Amino acid sequence: MDKNFWITTEPIRIEQVYKKVVRPQAGAVSTFIGTVREFTKGKRTLYLQYQAYVPMAEKKLEQIGREIAAKWENAETAIVHRIGRLEISDIAVAIAVSTPHRNDAFEASRYAIERIKEMVPIWKKEHWEDGTKWIGDQKEQVSYAKRLPSKEQMENG
Amino acid sequence: MDKNFWITTEPIRIEQVYKKVVRPQAGAVSTFIGTVREFTKGKRTLYLQYQAYVPMAEKKLEQIGREIAAKWENAETAIVHRIGRLEISDIAVAIAVSTPHRNDAFEASRYAIERIKEMVPIWKKEHWEDGTKWIGDQKEQVSYAKRLPSKEQMENG
Repeated sequence: MDKNFWITTEPIRIEQVYKKVVRPQAGAVSTFIGTVREFTKGKRTLYLQYQAYVPMAEKKLEQIGREIAAKWENAETAIVHRIGRLEISDIAVAIAVSTPHRNDAFEASRYAIERIKEMVPIWKKEHWEDGTKWIGDQKEQVSYAKRLPSKEQMENG
Repeated sequence: MDKNFWITTEPIRIEQVYKKVVRPQAGAVSTFIGTVREFTKGKRTLYLQYQAYVPMAEKKLEQIGREIAAKWENAETAIVHRIGRLEISDIAVAIAVSTPHRNDAFEASRYAIERIKEMVPIWKKEHWEDGTKWIGDQKEQVSYAKRLPSKEQMENG
């Protein structure tokens, strides 16, 4: 995988993003890993399914990398998001940002996950013990029950 | 390695701390990795040597883990610090904190590295092109040129 920003159907290992950003000019790497949590507000998740409009999602991840490079000096970013069926504790997203000093690394990796939730076209289907639901935007404020993205827009792992 | 807080002379891989904290209750893991940077204020580092008072350093790392557990709900922490000779880009320290939600993970992992710099008895010797120097406290505000820890207190990888 040559890209620093990509969508995958394979299990993610954090070394994959880490090794893309480590370099002699950097003294600090901050990573963020989002995993599938079993319980949310007392409700048990059995597994999740993620779908994405892949070409657009990768473009948006690249855009986040450019935003970070513009905001923090000498910052390098890598992001991978998985789609398809994910079990409890599987990694859904992994972010790594390297910078010369640690303050910037923390801020930038935090920025990355917030931006992903805001604007990357990835949808999540919750599978609970008693039903399923498409979670709309990544901030989980909209339900896509009545307005799922079209099949053409989505690619399913 | 059964412990969550340890000093090592071996190369560090971030998976080692990550896998200690990932669990079904957590949806977020923030890691911080400190690596050997080649240039600091224009001065080129060739390599570093770290020494530690190992039993005390491990106790202090454990203490940081307890502090985090008290400050952030349902947080789990793992920290490893390497001693001995480290080359450019080698990992000196790796921290992982898992929490149910991402805000806490970021805050706690940041807290961990600041506390390490404040109070863990690990000393660093810079090897530059034109000389060497023991860096005193980890915040790099004190030089140990005249008050190095005693040989009995230090263990060298």
